[in-house]
Formats: sequence, C-alpha cells, structure tokens
Amino acid sequence: MATTLSSVAEICLSARQASRQLAVSDTATKNAALTAIADALSERGEEILRANELDMQAGREAQLSDALLDRLLLDEERILQIAGAVRQIVALPDPVGEVLDGHRLPNGLDIRKVRVPLGVIAVVYEARPNVTVDAAALCLKSGNAIVLRGSTIAAHSNAALAAIASDAAVQAGLPAGCVGLIAGGGREELAELATQKETVDLIIPRGGEGLKAALEEVACVPVIYAASGNCHVYVDAAAELEKARKIVLNAKTQRPGVCNAAETLLVHTDVASPLLARLLPELHAAGVELRVDERARAAYADGGGGGLPLTDATAEDWSTEYLAMTLAVGVVDSVGHAIEHIGRYGSGHSEAIVTTDTNAARAFQLGVDAACVYVNASTRFTDGGEFGMGAEIGNSTQKLHARGPIGLRELCTFKYLVEGDGQVRT
Amino acid sequence: MATTLSSVAEICLSARQASRQLAVSDTATKNAALTAIADALSERGEEILRANELDMQAGREAQLSDALLDRLLLDEERILQIAGAVRQIVALPDPVGEVLDGHRLPNGLDIRKVRVPLGVIAVVYEARPNVTVDAAALCLKSGNAIVLRGSTIAAHSNAALAAIASDAAVQAGLPAGCVGLIAGGGREELAELATQKETVDLIIPRGGEGLKAALEEVACVPVIYAASGNCHVYVDAAAELEKARKIVLNAKTQRPGVCNAAETLLVHTDVASPLLARLLPELHAAGVELRVDERARAAYADGGGGGLPLTDATAEDWSTEYLAMTLAVGVVDSVGHAIEHIGRYGSGHSEAIVTTDTNAARAFQLGVDAACVYVNASTRFTDGGEFGMGAEIGNSTQKLHARGPIGLRELCTFKYLVEGDGQVRT
Repeated sequence: MATTLSSVAEICLSARQASRQLAVSDTATKNAALTAIADALSERGEEILRANELDMQAGREAQLSDALLDRLLLDEERILQIAGAVRQIVALPDPVGEVLDGHRLPNGLDIRKVRVPLGVIAVVYEARPNVTVDAAALCLKSGNAIVLRGSTIAAHSNAALAAIASDAAVQAGLPAGCVGLIAGGGREELAELATQKETVDLIIPRGGEGLKAALEEVACVPVIYAASGNCHVYVDAAAELEKARKIVLNAKTQRPGVCNAAETLLVHTDVASPLLARLLPELHAAGVELRVDERARAAYADGGGGGLPLTDATAEDWSTEYLAMTLAVGVVDSVGHAIEHIGRYGSGHSEAIVTTDTNAARAFQLGVDAACVYVNASTRFTDGGEFGMGAEIGNSTQKLHARGPIGLRELCTFKYLVEGDGQVRT
Repeated sequence: MATTLSSVAEICLSARQASRQLAVSDTATKNAALTAIADALSERGEEILRANELDMQAGREAQLSDALLDRLLLDEERILQIAGAVRQIVALPDPVGEVLDGHRLPNGLDIRKVRVPLGVIAVVYEARPNVTVDAAALCLKSGNAIVLRGSTIAAHSNAALAAIASDAAVQAGLPAGCVGLIAGGGREELAELATQKETVDLIIPRGGEGLKAALEEVACVPVIYAASGNCHVYVDAAAELEKARKIVLNAKTQRPGVCNAAETLLVHTDVASPLLARLLPELHAAGVELRVDERARAAYADGGGGGLPLTDATAEDWSTEYLAMTLAVGVVDSVGHAIEHIGRYGSGHSEAIVTTDTNAARAFQLGVDAACVYVNASTRFTDGGEFGMGAEIGNSTQKLHARGPIGLRELCTFKYLVEGDGQVRT
C-alpha cells in the first residue's frame, strides 16, 4: 500500500517532510520517477482492474447512473491512456529553477527571482480515478508532494493507483510520503484537510459547486477554485458572419459539457437579422435548445426566420452555465453593451468577440475582465494543452496566483535569491 | 467628503463599479490623479492637521502610549513626506499592459499573457494615517480601486486624507468610488468586508497577528497576509568572519523593530569560538540581549570570552520574532543542520548564509524555503524599494501570488488575449 498512515494530519505531515527533498530533486530524478510510474501502471494492470471491479460492483449496487459508472470504469485501454499521459508530462520542461527576473542592485547585490515548488498540494476530486495519477504526475514533476482525496465511490481504484504511483516513485528515488492518499471521502476528512495550514500549501478542488461551497466554509489553507464557466460569444456589427457562425457553432456544440463551452450568444443589432436567420436553425438542427430575448426573436423573424421552437430567456438564463445543449441569445446595441452584459453575468472564464473592427476588438480586450479573451476564435481553446502549457490540473477563474489553465508553472511559487560580498543596509 | 455611502457593501460595490473604468484608464490619467493628490495634500494641509488634532486629543484622553501617539501624529513635515511618497509612485512604471509571455500556436492563434489590475483591493491597517494615502496611490497607479479600513483611533485623520485623495482623483478624471473609506473600525465592519467576495478581489491586512487571526476566521475573500519575520543569519564554517560580524550586527541592530531584522544567529561549530568571542560583546555593547544555547555558551568561553550576561535560550526563543534588541544564538554542525533549524522555526521571510564555500551557498539557496534567501548579505534588504520595485504595500510570507515585497506588479493579475481569424477547435 501507498501508506499505512491513518490520520489526515499524519498524511499531510509526511508529505511536508517529503516536499523538502522533492524541492531539491533534479529533473532527471523526477522524470525517472514518472517513467517508473508509467511502467508500473502497465505491470500492475491486473491489480488496478481488480480494485476497479470492486468499485464498479458497489456502484452498480448503489444504482449509480450509466454516465457516472462510465467515468468510474477502468479497462486496459484506459490504463494505457493514463500511462501515456504520464509519459507526456515527462516530456514537458521542468518549471523549477527557471529565472523569472533578475538584475544587479546599485549596491552590487545580484538579485534573481527563481521558480520553486509550492511544497505540498492537496487535490480534491470526484469520480474519475485517472485524476489520481494525472495529478500526482503533475505535482511530482513540479517538485511538489501531493495529498490526494478522491471520492468514496472510487476508493478501491484510487487506492490501487496511488499505491502504484507511490511505490514506483519511491523506488525511483523520490522520498516516501511524496504521494499521499486520504482514504476516507467524508466531509470530516475534507474539513480536516482544509485546515492543515502548517503542512499544506494549496488545495485544488476539481469538482462542482457543492465541493466549492463545502470548502469555502471551512478552508484556511489557500484554495484555487476551478470554478464555472459562463462563457459568451459576442458577434459585433463588423463581424464576418460566416466566421461568426462557425465560431458560435463550435463554442456551443463541439463539447457542451465543459467549462469553456459558450452559454450565451450576444449579437449586435445591426447584424442580428441576417445572422440569426441563418444560425438559429443550424443550432437547432445540431440539437441546441434556444432561449432568446425579445429583440433576438424579432430579429430572427425580420430576417425571414420562423418555425423554430424558441423559448423566452429569463434573467436566470443569463447567469446559467448550462453545460448542456442550451444557448441563451440576446441582442445588444454596441460592444459597450456586450461588455456590460458580460461584466454582469460572466464568470470570468473565456469570452469571445467576432469582429473585423479594431476599435471593437480593442474595447472588448480591455473591457472584459476574464481569464481568456478571444478575438475571432472559439472559446473552446482555453486549455493548458491548447495553450502550449502541456497538461493542466484545472482552470482557474480566480485572479490570484493562477488565472486560466493551471499547468506545471502554476503549481510553483518563486523565491528571491540575493547574492553579495558582505553588503549591509545603511 | 470622500463618500456619503454608509454600508460596507455599498462602499465595496461603488469601488467595483469604479474599478471597471480604472482598469482601462491610461497611465497619463492615473499619474495626473496622483499628482493632483500630492498637490491637494499641501493645499488642504490645515484640514488634515485639524482632523489629526481631534484624533491626538482623543488618543491622549485614552492614554495611548507615547509610541502610538507618535505614530498617529501628523505635522507639516509629515504631510510633505506623504505627498513626496505619492510623487515617487508617479515616477514608477505602470505595471498594467505589460506582456508577460506570448507566442503563436500551431493553428495560427496568437496568444499573449498581459498584466491587468486585480480590480478592487481592500487594505486594512492600524494606527499610521499615512497608509491611507500610500495605499491609495499604489492601488490607483496599478489601476485598482481601493477600499480602506483604518483603525478607530485615526478615524478623523484617515477620513480627511481619504476625502482629499478621492476628491483630487475624481477631479483629475478617475471615477467616483475609486477611493472608498469604511468609517467604522469595529470587528463587525471587518467581518462584513472580509465576505464581500462579489465585489472585493483581495484584502491586504497590514497589522499584527491579532488582525491576522481575526481575518482568518471570517475571510472568504482572498487575503495576502504580510506576516511575521523570524529571520536567521547562519555563519558557515567557510565564512569570512569580518563580513559575518558586520552582517549580523546590521541584520540585528540597524532597525530591530521591522520584519526583515534577524532574530536568531546560527554559527557553525568550527568558527563558533572565534566569532562569538568577538561578536557577542559587540552585540551586547549595541544593547542586544543575548539568549544562547549550551554550545554557544561553551564556544564563547572557549574563545576566551566571559563576563557577558547570557541567558539560556529555550525552545520558545527559536520561534520568537522579538522585533526588539534580543537575539537567540545557537551552534550547529553543518549547513544541513542550519537548513533544518530554519525549516522548523523560520517564518519563510528572509534568511542569510555567510560563507565563501559555493557548495554551502548552493545548499542553502536550494534548501531554505523562504521568500528571500541571501548569500553574504544582510537580511535587511528585503524591501520593495531596495529590490528596485519602487514602493511596496507590505511583505508577503505566503507562497501564492505574491511572495516577498508587494509592489505595483503584485497588485495586478493577468489575462490571456487570444487573437485569430476564425479558428475553431476540432
């Protein structure tokens, strides 16, 4: 087993102790450990499948939904995918030691700002067992110890995966305790974890609003919430309507269940009729339920449209992250009104404008307060992989420390190294 | 007056509204506002002095200590100093708009990571009224609205200063609400402020451990604590003892009441006798009370020392930030032991090694987990001004977002701007 420690505090303390050695481990050692983990996943595949079968059995008995059971399921191919993801992290550059800034002070002191690991990162996640290994690989690569807290329904799978990762990492030379798993998935364990401020540097919850609310109430350890994405596409008066159509269709329908999918379409009144008359039927044909304001309904009719089932959008629709094939549609008078609407209802995730007008593009980039602001592209690109950061552990919509994709660099902090030859302050 | 809003929530909402315009204000406008504030401080000096006299009178009646009354006192010279500090911030580069990173993605999308204001920053502070203006100037320059919450004993002074700053900023073209002041200094107002997560992006407390504890209990808004500095100087076996002496004397005695002053001296056993025999009398002569472990006492005697009043150091001494002319002194066997001691007792602020041995210096830089790690220099340099960042609003000992001096850049977040010509995700 990964660990015989029982209490949350003990697991976190053990991770803290491991973090000191991890912080000074070189890239070759960390990569060797990740490769050993990937190898061990294949070698000990049967062990993983047996553990997963226990979870699946319990899940079926508990009458979990098919979707949830599918998220829980591991098979040989999925284990290979997990191992493949670890090997991809091996190939990423090590963020530790990167010099972010530096100069010589007037008194001759040389100062450098250098990226270093945070220390101990706790990751709280829900059903998918692959997160156990993904998160461990990202944390180890960035020189951090990890404390995992998965959900009860994946307890056996998570335990098997964490044990394999921990065993392989330790055999490859990383310190014991570098991968800790909290066995209990209850709210007591969560509350205990959220208050380990002496040993845990950061908690990253990967889950829904319920988990966020539960943590907000109790956490005194810093938390980076990967919160909801109520994303907008605004089609400006000066938009190329062909591009606008493709971007809206992509942002809404390419993968509607993820946080960077669009939930609201805003259209400038000048182009509302031609755009909506063409686009709404396409969205409907793709299976999208349409909730429109009065002006959008009128513009659609003015453009010659008709016959589609259009629901009236309510105030609630503007605030809702559907995560489903539903789109709210509104008409605005200017880019300023679009910015205002997004400021009021957006969640600061990903927002797009479609326009050929540099003034409109610039106003949108300046005025929209979000992690990612797009000009003439789909919101769906907000992703560590797409951004060239390699893998990501989540997407932050808060403004402190990490905003947008949380990759290896975002799992680090920095320190100032100052070198002199006897300087004192006068 | 700065504002006639009464409730904390109203003041924060007004700041949030102002923050949208502030975020897109150009450098010239922000600098003009800061210059107007500096001018207004001189022009309305009498108003400030009258308000301050009310606070001083109440303070004398409440029998505040002379030290506290001195911190509270404003006179013409101090008002000039406050104005001078604002003019220095005018001269600093604007952090907003700086491109931190950027590249072209394989699909042709251009991505840039750009520094932008956080939005609304709340600063909670104690007696010194000058913080009212310092903090406002730093926040406005970095494009943020500010909500100030000072202490009750400086209420009149703070109200006068905030009104002057707000009036001048608004006359110069910044939006109303950009400088808000919470009139009440009670714990209810603090708790209300600490939960305004819809309108406040960050709280920076400038105060002691009591304020920190009070905030930790209630805050759901992100907080950057400018916490305590239990700083160490470690004199290695390979140290140049002359430099070591000067560094220790400087780090301890140059300004003992601040967070970057040294609180513990660790000495390698090989040089403990010659160093301590010379240095302890010097520290004593400078007025430093010495708390030594057994080995330090013996080394001092072995070096021919004697006759000094040396107290036995207890476990508590290693953990204490004296902020006074007191120094704990211990002897260690290696740089590894020094790192261990600092890992156990340090607060992650500023730590120094004195050595000519590159291996020892490197081990210390790698192994010590602190905001600032010094080689052959005094810990006293940890300061935004000394680091070339211009003014600072505090010093962070936490690892997320800002570590070390919090200057203009640290009052910002960033956003990703992504530009394309119709890209969609496949």
